[in-house]
Amino acid sequence: MSKLLKVGITHGDINGISYEVILKALADEKIPELFTPVLFGSPQIVEKARREFGMDILPIHIVKRGAEIRDGKLNIVEIPVTHNDVTPGVPTEVSGRAAVQALEKAVEALKDGVIDVLVTAPISKKAVQGNEFQFPGHTEFLAERLGDGKGALMILFDDYLKVALVTTHLPLSKVPREITREKVTEKIRLFENVLRRDFTVERPKIAVLSLNPHCGDEGLLGNEEIDHILPAIEDMKKEGILAFGPYSADGFFATGAYRNFDGVLAMYHDQGLAPFKALAREEGVNFTAGLPFIRTSPDHGTAYDRAWKGEADPTSMRQAIYKACDIWRNRRNYINASANPLKKARQEKTADKTIDLSADDETL
Amino acid sequence: MSKLLKVGITHGDINGISYEVILKALADEKIPELFTPVLFGSPQIVEKARREFGMDILPIHIVKRGAEIRDGKLNIVEIPVTHNDVTPGVPTEVSGRAAVQALEKAVEALKDGVIDVLVTAPISKKAVQGNEFQFPGHTEFLAERLGDGKGALMILFDDYLKVALVTTHLPLSKVPREITREKVTEKIRLFENVLRRDFTVERPKIAVLSLNPHCGDEGLLGNEEIDHILPAIEDMKKEGILAFGPYSADGFFATGAYRNFDGVLAMYHDQGLAPFKALAREEGVNFTAGLPFIRTSPDHGTAYDRAWKGEADPTSMRQAIYKACDIWRNRRNYINASANPLKKARQEKTADKTIDLSADDETL
Repeated sequence: MSKLLKVGITHGDINGISYEVILKALADEKIPELFTPVLFGSPQIVEKARREFGMDILPIHIVKRGAEIRDGKLNIVEIPVTHNDVTPGVPTEVSGRAAVQALEKAVEALKDGVIDVLVTAPISKKAVQGNEFQFPGHTEFLAERLGDGKGALMILFDDYLKVALVTTHLPLSKVPREITREKVTEKIRLFENVLRRDFTVERPKIAVLSLNPHCGDEGLLGNEEIDHILPAIEDMKKEGILAFGPYSADGFFATGAYRNFDGVLAMYHDQGLAPFKALAREEGVNFTAGLPFIRTSPDHGTAYDRAWKGEADPTSMRQAIYKACDIWRNRRNYINASANPLKKARQEKTADKTIDLSADDETL
Repeated sequence: MSKLLKVGITHGDINGISYEVILKALADEKIPELFTPVLFGSPQIVEKARREFGMDILPIHIVKRGAEIRDGKLNIVEIPVTHNDVTPGVPTEVSGRAAVQALEKAVEALKDGVIDVLVTAPISKKAVQGNEFQFPGHTEFLAERLGDGKGALMILFDDYLKVALVTTHLPLSKVPREITREKVTEKIRLFENVLRRDFTVERPKIAVLSLNPHCGDEGLLGNEEIDHILPAIEDMKKEGILAFGPYSADGFFATGAYRNFDGVLAMYHDQGLAPFKALAREEGVNFTAGLPFIRTSPDHGTAYDRAWKGEADPTSMRQAIYKACDIWRNRRNYINASANPLKKARQEKTADKTIDLSADDETL
């Protein structure tokens, strides 16, 4: 039996950089003390990667049932695909099927409590379509499989900036009609809750971006700000949520205004992610928030052009793993504190001699 | 008579930070040797700013006709507005009218050859609407007044990155229908010409961004890439223009890929400007390219919240002035070289002992 936090990792697209970045991220002597990795992938492809890139890895331990997971090992839940199926740099039917199979198994493992958090390696949207996978991305798939109907929130974050999206993987032409007062309200409320519960921000301040350039310039460049976004922000203020804006995206990132907020809510994919990635580079982590389960991923794609060359940077994958653990711990503490207000009061009274309610988290 | 390059500067919105950044940018001992400033504004407001912010400025010289411009002075073409009309931090009818009057006079001065280049301080779109100014911004106004029918191109740039926009000040909902093969082709061609003529890039490489997230994911997230953008890029390649893409905006800025290109063509305002400004901060310059005349501006707005407080940063305004001079010189050299290929050949033959055809530019 495992005593550490169990981190499930799906292998993503076998023809991309996923095996390389996963194994590089796990090639750290301290990992056996920190958490227990459970890879949904192929031991043969792990071996191929180990040999080609000359990496030190934990001893492999094949797992058939959840109870067999062992600390100090690289546990693998087998996906039926081998090193002979790897075609570096292109999406194939095999790579698409193997990616979906890993996801399906990992979702079951999460639901059954076999793993505590899920980190997903990048898939090829093209390869997985048709394989009974009719979703534009991980976020939408997991929202359906793991959601409680309250909707998910896609967040990209690093230590300095958290950007959430109102709309995610959608053609640009379909974005404006999705920006309604109701939807913006729902996403702000969800974001505020996530910042408190998963990121330990006591009174989160949220900046809301405008849909149109220059905030719509009082209606000259679009009416969504006046009709939907501003009313949504006002609604939130009435609920006591610290939402501000809307802010023009370019000016907002020009002045570094984001430093004054705990989170930034962008209206659509490129508006939030292009400036985030321009600032964050290799270290961003993608978090599917608002679900009963915790899922993170690196903020890059399959990177076919660099696949199986030994040059991939594992920083974002490593961050995705560590941040998933952090969020798991934060959320548990938040739930414990909420469930037992007495303990919280006791903690507050002895502020100069804080009682650590999370001593058993040290190993995370 | 002036012998130096004459730089026209419009005063923008008198209630914003424009007087402060203009005078701070001109408070440099070397300016009398570099160029001759011609402000379209109010001597009384200049005096107010000088007194309040304690700045050293050149001696004021009121100009009624172009021939009266003097080197070594702060030449002012008077706009009928005074310090009593300043209401810091808000758009007013007076500030809007004064902004338009300055623009109109400056445009005439450019056309008459009274000034060589134009730098515009930020205006309030709200204040100027109705004052016979029915344009969403400077770019569109100047394209109509100064254009030769070939269309203008809005470019934001600093020393490392040049971002041009296919669409500029447009509600987001109207962007997708504007992204046609014809329009993208036209903008790439114009951009390539501008990079050669105004930025001295011999064989410009242009990166073209996608409209939809993830490049439309092969049609799953929109068809504009397949139907319009990719064919436009192919058209350009046939013309020998080095256009590449389309690239997904977030991935493009994540990997620093922009460093491999001389210019980046974005499909719409926030897609290009939010990441540009996130990277460039205070030093970006806005250039209305593709016109027979040269116009630049700082990349910030009126900044009403910081107006008349003495805290505004003049870096972008200073850069706008200096870059306008650089572009003017580049363009003249390009035209001279094209007009007289013999001279160019002579210059190339004696590469180790280059004959400076632009010796008289030293003072710029």
